[in-house]
Formats: sequence, C-alpha cells, structure tokens
Amino acid sequence: MASDDTVKLLGFLVSPYSRRVEWALKLKGVDYEYVEEDIFNKSSLLLELNPVHKKIPVLVHHQKVISESYVILEYIDETWKQSPLLLPQDPHERAKARFWARFGEEKLLLASAGAMCSLGEEKERLLKLAIEAMEKIEEEIKGKEFFGGESIGYLDIALGWISYWLPVWEEVGSIQILDPLTFPATTSWAKNFLNHPIIKDNLPPRQKMIPYFHERSKFFSSLPPGWIKI
Amino acid sequence: MASDDTVKLLGFLVSPYSRRVEWALKLKGVDYEYVEEDIFNKSSLLLELNPVHKKIPVLVHHQKVISESYVILEYIDETWKQSPLLLPQDPHERAKARFWARFGEEKLLLASAGAMCSLGEEKERLLKLAIEAMEKIEEEIKGKEFFGGESIGYLDIALGWISYWLPVWEEVGSIQILDPLTFPATTSWAKNFLNHPIIKDNLPPRQKMIPYFHERSKFFSSLPPGWIKI
Repeated sequence: MASDDTVKLLGFLVSPYSRRVEWALKLKGVDYEYVEEDIFNKSSLLLELNPVHKKIPVLVHHQKVISESYVILEYIDETWKQSPLLLPQDPHERAKARFWARFGEEKLLLASAGAMCSLGEEKERLLKLAIEAMEKIEEEIKGKEFFGGESIGYLDIALGWISYWLPVWEEVGSIQILDPLTFPATTSWAKNFLNHPIIKDNLPPRQKMIPYFHERSKFFSSLPPGWIKI
Repeated sequence: MASDDTVKLLGFLVSPYSRRVEWALKLKGVDYEYVEEDIFNKSSLLLELNPVHKKIPVLVHHQKVISESYVILEYIDETWKQSPLLLPQDPHERAKARFWARFGEEKLLLASAGAMCSLGEEKERLLKLAIEAMEKIEEEIKGKEFFGGESIGYLDIALGWISYWLPVWEEVGSIQILDPLTFPATTSWAKNFLNHPIIKDNLPPRQKMIPYFHERSKFFSSLPPGWIKI
C-alpha cells in the first residue's frame, strides 16, 4: 500500500470515467500517481480495492479507497478545498449540477455509447434517445460559457466526454448526435472546454481511441439487442 | 406558485422515493406542504416542475425546483444545516454514504422490485442479483446500530425502503430476500430504523401498499422479460 498521504488513481487510458478524476485532480493541482489498469485482465489490486463493482476509477488517499467517478469528484472537492471549487456554493445550484450530471450519465452517455454499439432498430431507438437527451443539455448550456458559469466546474467535468469521446463514438458508429446546427450552444461549449489548458493537455490520443471503440462496437453489436440497459 | 419561503413536496403515498424526502424534512423539523400526485394521471404542476423526468418527488423551495430524491436529500442537508446532519462530516465517510446509497438504488432496489414483478427465469435472475446485493449491504451494517453510526443519517434514509417496502414486495412477489437468518445485521438495523419515532409515524399504510404493488406486479409480469434495466 502506498504511504499515507499519497494519492493514487487506478484508471484506463481511453475511459471517460477515470479521465474525469484526472481533470479534477489537475485542476486542483493535486499530485497523484496514475496506475493504468488492463480492464480485460483486472489486477488483484483493482479487485481488492473495488470488490463491489470491480471497475475503474478508484482513488486511494490516506490509504482509504473511493470509487465511482461522481463520488470521487465530490470527495476531491471536499478534501482539497482550494480553488477552483468544482461544485457551486449555492445549494440550489449544487442540486442542479448533480441533477444534470446524473442525467448526462443515465440518459445521454448510455444512449450514445449504446447507439455506437448496436445495429438496426435498436441503433435507431438509442440514437433517438441520445438526441432527445442532447436537446435538454442544449437548453441548459445556452447563454453560458461553461456549465459552471465563467469557469469549469463539476458539471463541465461530468459532461466533458461530450467534447471529445462523443465525436469518436459518432465516427465509429456512423451516427450524428451533436449536430452543430441543431446544438450550437453545446458545440460552442465543447470548444471552450477543449481549449482549457488543463483539459487540452489531459486527453487520450485519438488514434488509440478509434481502434479501441471500433473493437468494442464490433463486440457489442454481435450481442442480442437489449444488452444496453436504457 | 407558493409564496417565496414555503416548502412544497409533490409525492405519491406508497412511493419510497418521496417518503425519503419526507423523512429528511421531518428529521430536520422543516414544515412543508405535501401535495399528493396521481402518477397515472400526472398533474400539469408536476409536468411543469419536472419536465425532464416527469417524476415525483419534486421539492419546491424559494420558488426553486429540485428533483431526484438523492439530490433533494443533499439539498435539504445543505439548506437546513441544523441537527441532525444527514451526511457525515468526514469526506471519506461522505463518499461511502453516497457510494452505498447509489448501490442500494441501482443494484438492490431495482433487482428486488424487478423480482416482485417478473416470472420464471427472469424472476430467478433478479432474485439472485438482489440477494447478492443484500450480502454487500449486510457487510456494511455489521456492528452498527445505524449506517449513520448512532443516529439516522443519509444512508439510512436512502436504504430505509428495505425496512418497510421490501417485506411488502416479498409478500406480493412470493420471494424472500431479507432472510433474518442470512442477514441478521440488516434485519436488526431494519428494526432500529422502524422504531425511530419520526420514521414510525411517517409510513404509508400497509393495507394500501399491498393492493397497489399487487396491481403493479400483475401489470409488469405481463410484459416481455427485459423491461427491467438491470
């Protein structure tokens, strides 16, 4: 086990979930040791640290273990209280950020990844769900530079995958979800987000993402429809 | 719209989701106006307040709207800071409470309700998932009076349905999940929880729950398997 005050993150290069945690740590200026996991051949360390879900990301701090990316983001914000604060201070604004983060995960992300990884009617169904979810996100970001206002916050980090993973998934799945003409505000936000120096410097290489997600898409498309739980 | 400082809650009598919010408000001593929704014939108020999910519970405070029960619980804790605090103060303990609340929802609650509402192999599959999830919960509560330690907290409220809804679902679905011999610590916690004066006085009548969940079970059992997303 690492010494008491070190921060260790178990992640996976092309995962949007562990990348969220990296963004938050980098924004806060927290040093950490990054450990790449092979999610197809999970290490005994991962299985020991996250026996419930056996998933990355896992954060280890003070020899304590935190898993689930949104739970980790809140932990980071509460533990390293220095600027930038990730969640807003107003309780109602905090509630909104948490609400839309969960919405992004359960509606938009699942439907988008699912549409990339399916065929025929199921693909159409998921694509429709993804576009409907994107319509709600578009309403939320209208008139703002970031979801967090003038700077990147919790919800920007939570939805950050839209800016970089979604275009890859669209290419791999031959689909379009984030149409710039239909969703100009989200498109503009995605540009702002990717232009942030911390984000720009902390992205997986696109040339590693494309073959990985092609492989995943091929695998899941071969399963009977209904494997995606949305 | 209600005047500025009133608290209004849209709920449904036999819903464990809106009951969570009632427990939290009562524990904090917050006065609120309760509005019963007909979830089969949703009011224009509900559709206006929660256009995204169109679901109860919805809390209205200072003319601002908060939905999703876990988001509402955090809002309540952050807005009415008086005792009892629902979430622990230590960031790692907070992370654990959030982690297990989400686990209870996504694994145990869905599988338990699903097992009540399905037949044959699907029922067996969901029952097995529910019992596996209960094993994890049992490990967490061992040696403690409440998940929150010596008093009721966020995670007790989040998992409170286990104490009162689950026995109804077991009866309606002719299943057993919370076997007292296999899960003595959870069984003992459920008793402690139901004995708390605020909880005891804020439960829906069992005689209204039984026919309601029988009806739901009959309806969902008639659908093709796979409707439950777990």
